[in-house]
Amino acid sequence: MTDTQITAAYYRGDRRFTVEKKPTPTPGEGEVAVRIAYCGICGTDMHVFHGNMDARVGFERIIGHEMSGTVETLGAGVTGFAEGQKVVVRPLDHCGACPACDAGHTHICHNLKFLGLDTDGAMQEVWTVPAHTLHALPDDMRLDHAALIEPVAVACHDVRMSGLKEGEDVVVIGGGPIGVLVAMVARESGGKVVISEVNETRLAIARDMGFDTVNPAKADLGAEIDRRTGGKGADVVFEVSGSQPGVDAMTEVAATRGRIVMVAIHAKKPQVDMFRFFWRELQLIGARVYEAADYDRAIALVAAGAIAADKVITDVSPLSDIQQAFLSLDASPTALKSLIKLGA
Amino acid sequence: MTDTQITAAYYRGDRRFTVEKKPTPTPGEGEVAVRIAYCGICGTDMHVFHGNMDARVGFERIIGHEMSGTVETLGAGVTGFAEGQKVVVRPLDHCGACPACDAGHTHICHNLKFLGLDTDGAMQEVWTVPAHTLHALPDDMRLDHAALIEPVAVACHDVRMSGLKEGEDVVVIGGGPIGVLVAMVARESGGKVVISEVNETRLAIARDMGFDTVNPAKADLGAEIDRRTGGKGADVVFEVSGSQPGVDAMTEVAATRGRIVMVAIHAKKPQVDMFRFFWRELQLIGARVYEAADYDRAIALVAAGAIAADKVITDVSPLSDIQQAFLSLDASPTALKSLIKLGA
Repeated sequence: MTDTQITAAYYRGDRRFTVEKKPTPTPGEGEVAVRIAYCGICGTDMHVFHGNMDARVGFERIIGHEMSGTVETLGAGVTGFAEGQKVVVRPLDHCGACPACDAGHTHICHNLKFLGLDTDGAMQEVWTVPAHTLHALPDDMRLDHAALIEPVAVACHDVRMSGLKEGEDVVVIGGGPIGVLVAMVARESGGKVVISEVNETRLAIARDMGFDTVNPAKADLGAEIDRRTGGKGADVVFEVSGSQPGVDAMTEVAATRGRIVMVAIHAKKPQVDMFRFFWRELQLIGARVYEAADYDRAIALVAAGAIAADKVITDVSPLSDIQQAFLSLDASPTALKSLIKLGA
Repeated sequence: MTDTQITAAYYRGDRRFTVEKKPTPTPGEGEVAVRIAYCGICGTDMHVFHGNMDARVGFERIIGHEMSGTVETLGAGVTGFAEGQKVVVRPLDHCGACPACDAGHTHICHNLKFLGLDTDGAMQEVWTVPAHTLHALPDDMRLDHAALIEPVAVACHDVRMSGLKEGEDVVVIGGGPIGVLVAMVARESGGKVVISEVNETRLAIARDMGFDTVNPAKADLGAEIDRRTGGKGADVVFEVSGSQPGVDAMTEVAATRGRIVMVAIHAKKPQVDMFRFFWRELQLIGARVYEAADYDRAIALVAAGAIAADKVITDVSPLSDIQQAFLSLDASPTALKSLIKLGA
């Protein structure tokens, strides 16, 4: 029998969470209640923590979306899942009526609700979600590793949008959590990957994961990529840094007809070398979140051990320590992915 | 028998041409001598006239590349063409040994010679060119109309690179000579085209050509495109203006997953809304010059009368008046394409 109360973490504004009891949610029609095992801290969650998204999330919000769990109860009309089954949630709820939905691009619906930002999320012991957001996991998958599936799906989407082919040269600009996951998925797709990153600690982690690296603050990145590619440049570039130097580098290192995937969120409009786009017939491809196929691939990659999950997960804390977990992640130059462990 | 001397126009720097006699060139092995009928004045030629390309072209250069003519003599080893045959030249000579050539992108060869800039061009009565640059024309094609094939091929390349499909909504930003040609080719490909232009004279010309137009200085372009597309936006956008407002507009009017083709040359790096690329998964596609297939389509479109050649050609001057022709084109708000007529 389900307890009548669960524990949840509420964002209260100004870098502060409160951990409180709340009634156990029950799934409505077409919904599923998921018992959360782990929930990762996303860069977006850190933006919330910093107060940058207060207008969107308010001060009574349970955030969190990089989760894993098991089916607790099925709402009316839900089939295809069983209680106790391991699952992850693809946290996107679309309207079904806008031009993007009409064109089949439901993941970038004009009225998209992102679960865990626009609705309550997974930093609670039981989370109710629309059944269409669920993906089943293999029974033997570790649920801590499964909490990486959402960010790995981001990387799968980025790589799929790039059209990367076996043997192509790849530069990933920015070696943070998403950068290394993009690099891993690109390597799994047959890309010859170089990670460009200015932080020496992150460079060491990337090298430990087996990647070739360049520090563009210490070496001429364009010359280094030219040297590795016989003057051709990179067939595919992922701009994950969100910085003006990253935007400068993306056009410099791309081969003629190279594809550049815009992964990063640029809050300010950077200056972009449009002449280089014209001159080398470069392509820029915006890539946001993921589609069902990206989740399928992410689950398969995590299941196959193709993602170095134990290197990516650098911290696990109980929900009661969520405040400290955010502060520690924010302060750490070496942390990649911090997980919150729900339940006992 | 060929005369021993021909007339040619030499760019001498500082907005000045001299028209002089020179020995009639004879084609070397693998070359063809073409008797020039007409040569259009390109925006690039105007840049030369203004002195912006002196370092590249020098002060003894015969410029010109938007030409039509007939085969005068065939050099050794050239087959497939006959004397007197109507032809145009695709003025690109590639190296065959760089990474772009290796990948099959010879039109954007890293060591590309553009005939008429990096070598002497078509503002002379007889021009010798590599035989591989020739395209044959139908016998009944008017040679003044044929002088538009080069800029029409630019438009064909831009439209082909966009992947435009029948029924898609198109916005062309900039209603100058290339803008209206892009609009015409997009319309021929089944696009529903709107031209955005701030110059009222050019807007009137575009409307006279049957295009829907918006003046973004007088109306909210984004709202106008939303109104015409049910809030969807343009599936394909061509940025032909080369201006910061044009770059601002291109991301504003594009639909989710819309494709933006960068046609214009941006000498300065504009600020670009990278967040919009991410958020709406926009694509940017650089497009430069043309490939053989684009020339084939341009010839077919001009032959079919699908390009309003008599509206696009707004002036024809003899070679002896080239100086005045450049000055007049530079000063005219209504001129689109000025041709120089070679020979008697």
